[in-house]
Amino acid sequence: MMRTTHGPMLSLLVAIATWVSAATPAASQGDPTAVSLVIRAGTVVTMDADRHVLSPGAVAIGGGEIRAVGTPETLAARFPTTFVLDVGSDLLLPGLINTHGHVPMVLYRGLADDLALMDWLERFIFPAEARTVTAEFVRAGTRLGVLEMIRSGTTTFSDMYYFEEESAIVTKEAGLRAVLGQSVIQFPVADAPTPADALVRAEAFIRDWRGDPLITPAVAPHSMYTLDAATLTAARDLARRHDVPVMIHLAETQAEVALSRQRHGASPTQYLNTLEFLGPNVLAAHAVWLDDDDVAILAARGVAVSHNPESNMKLASGIAPVPKLRAAGVVVGLGTDGAASNNDLDMFDAMRQAALLHKVASGDPRTLPAGEALAMATIEGARALGMEARVGSIEVGKQADLISVGIDDARHTPMYDPVSHLVYVTHGTDVRTTIVAGRVLMLDRRVQTLDEEAVRAEGRRWAARVRDAVR
Amino acid sequence: MMRTTHGPMLSLLVAIATWVSAATPAASQGDPTAVSLVIRAGTVVTMDADRHVLSPGAVAIGGGEIRAVGTPETLAARFPTTFVLDVGSDLLLPGLINTHGHVPMVLYRGLADDLALMDWLERFIFPAEARTVTAEFVRAGTRLGVLEMIRSGTTTFSDMYYFEEESAIVTKEAGLRAVLGQSVIQFPVADAPTPADALVRAEAFIRDWRGDPLITPAVAPHSMYTLDAATLTAARDLARRHDVPVMIHLAETQAEVALSRQRHGASPTQYLNTLEFLGPNVLAAHAVWLDDDDVAILAARGVAVSHNPESNMKLASGIAPVPKLRAAGVVVGLGTDGAASNNDLDMFDAMRQAALLHKVASGDPRTLPAGEALAMATIEGARALGMEARVGSIEVGKQADLISVGIDDARHTPMYDPVSHLVYVTHGTDVRTTIVAGRVLMLDRRVQTLDEEAVRAEGRRWAARVRDAVR
Repeated sequence: MMRTTHGPMLSLLVAIATWVSAATPAASQGDPTAVSLVIRAGTVVTMDADRHVLSPGAVAIGGGEIRAVGTPETLAARFPTTFVLDVGSDLLLPGLINTHGHVPMVLYRGLADDLALMDWLERFIFPAEARTVTAEFVRAGTRLGVLEMIRSGTTTFSDMYYFEEESAIVTKEAGLRAVLGQSVIQFPVADAPTPADALVRAEAFIRDWRGDPLITPAVAPHSMYTLDAATLTAARDLARRHDVPVMIHLAETQAEVALSRQRHGASPTQYLNTLEFLGPNVLAAHAVWLDDDDVAILAARGVAVSHNPESNMKLASGIAPVPKLRAAGVVVGLGTDGAASNNDLDMFDAMRQAALLHKVASGDPRTLPAGEALAMATIEGARALGMEARVGSIEVGKQADLISVGIDDARHTPMYDPVSHLVYVTHGTDVRTTIVAGRVLMLDRRVQTLDEEAVRAEGRRWAARVRDAVR
Repeated sequence: MMRTTHGPMLSLLVAIATWVSAATPAASQGDPTAVSLVIRAGTVVTMDADRHVLSPGAVAIGGGEIRAVGTPETLAARFPTTFVLDVGSDLLLPGLINTHGHVPMVLYRGLADDLALMDWLERFIFPAEARTVTAEFVRAGTRLGVLEMIRSGTTTFSDMYYFEEESAIVTKEAGLRAVLGQSVIQFPVADAPTPADALVRAEAFIRDWRGDPLITPAVAPHSMYTLDAATLTAARDLARRHDVPVMIHLAETQAEVALSRQRHGASPTQYLNTLEFLGPNVLAAHAVWLDDDDVAILAARGVAVSHNPESNMKLASGIAPVPKLRAAGVVVGLGTDGAASNNDLDMFDAMRQAALLHKVASGDPRTLPAGEALAMATIEGARALGMEARVGSIEVGKQADLISVGIDDARHTPMYDPVSHLVYVTHGTDVRTTIVAGRVLMLDRRVQTLDEEAVRAEGRRWAARVRDAVR
């Protein structure tokens, strides 16, 4: 049995692991039980239905899938000649799932903060978008955002923006998994002068990418307040016709609710329900301002919610009724939102923030315990995206989307409970290994699929144009 | 002019910088203008009264103090033969100031979470403390906590715990600056069977350590609900007699307020005011449940507040009226509280949390902008501890307490505003250099004053005993 560890052998290890990983699909094509790599970790946090934790533990992967989960001894006995990637004392867990964002907006991170919402939008975000969003911008921004996600342990993300075909190309190249929603909005935007054009683009995007192993195309009508009933209905029909997910912003601010009541005499949720827009393929982002009737509708229609605590706090949108939604049976995943309102894509922050915010909001420290916050960032996030059969936990037959977190530092010492640390201590910067569909995207904090310096330099070049655009 | 950068020359650099730093006090004793080291950074965030930011910038230090602040060119011209530590594109800023904590409790981090307060205290924290707190425990815990603080950019901390003489020795050895408050509490504790004994210990501690350049001794009566009037008054008198700070928990929970009203017919703040306990040397931790009268009293008496947003959220204590306190003129610093209720000592988290929490609590995204959150973690924290003449900003004549933050990663790219990034993006793990009183405690993430592996191993050994204690 070959075995290697962190240390001076790193370069060789990178070469071998990349080779093993790349060789995997071909080698195992003929044999669905073939295993090409065994990962051995101090602790494996599976997030399976019983929340099994193995210390130490090991995971065998082949053909991009998880083929076995067990103790290192068991797996060594079963796969005696297989290459072993030993991640030392690291925690191995399912890759994190970011259920809401606008990835290319990393190019606007920190451009403007601490402003009233309309000031922020009208003086900075809208002018910047009008003057800088192009296919090239989306490519550069997605590359930078995907790099940040690989480095912070996100393996699946959901996106709502423009030129999603560019995002798809870049994401697939980098090796990440994504649900990409082509935006539909009433006013002219960079990639579509009318919502009808946007729907045509969305349909072409769906046709081009459906069936891809990493990219799930989707349609993203922006919100009930930026779209008329005809377009909302058309977006709904497009999604049904192709059986793809729908992403929409819902009840993010009190202003949206007031506008909906004024225009339609109904809450945003009630209004969308009367349009027969809501269903199990709909992922509603934010869902902050809901009354009991709204919660009941979301539960009855099987709509999933993406909770974005940091964005909701930073923009002072409000506190989503997450415990109430979950109690009603609504699936709630976590998201970062765009980096313009966060200001990063770190899903560990999202977990910690959710766990802390709902404790203080409810006045009860038992609200959203660590294990539930971690579930929201993994298996519940997978459920929210309709992908729970493929990702979100370490279980045999699922895709090998795994990350390892280093704990050999003062901050993680001592460790009484790995799940507590993952939620209350770990930062994205502690992630050491990121694997998607069995492909090693980052090893010992070296990203294998992107030229980091080139990606950052491209980001800095775009920032100069953004600065000019809002001058 | 010698110059060096991050990279392969690291070992040599570490040796030279440590030597330069150690040589500093002696070399410059006879000459208060002598400069032994110039630090050059991509950006210097001074936090002086005008909030000057220099890009690029440089700081000259000698005799443990800041001797000059300017552009790299100006300082190169003034000090042509001085050793230059070039931290590349890093942001250089004043070391962070943690105004409230119980450092040895890092040994309990993650021992128990997500429980009702009394469950958490009575089933875990109290039994663990009763069975494990000794002088050796405090030494091991302080060493681990100080290591974590050096690694996350805290250069001054405030502590309330037992055996503070052990904390003082360990902190001084590691080179950090601290205000250490010997605890006084009504019931028997590990280092004092009665509050009278605790007061005797506190006085001895003050006598032993007063005048120390790094350690400020203080007295820490635990709270109005765990002490009688006689002991509170005696603690007050002790502090006045020796002119040292007083740290106390104040109005942390609704239960405390209810108990105070029941026992004394007054809020905790009003009660302490009638005891003439409150004054400018008092630092009140938490101050969550205050009415307008309480805020007015704190302002009138010059009491400073330590705001601990993460602890208050995790324990569901409530949301302190920070904007109201600051508007009333109360100095508010930031703290982490003990790691048992946080679960780490990362002051970047405290800043971000304060900025986000008060936005959503007030419903106004303009509340606590990034610059004010950073001030609370630096110059306002210094003010809260009565140390603003010595630390908290990069200004000539102040102590050379400096940290550098690396920004050459995807997460900090692009950078429109360094202050925004420090609050909304940076984690403690991004800190690369930590300097206190001109002594380099960490260089390129290598801690110079502690054996990291030994400190962590000691922490793990104690954790085994803690686990047994709460079994």
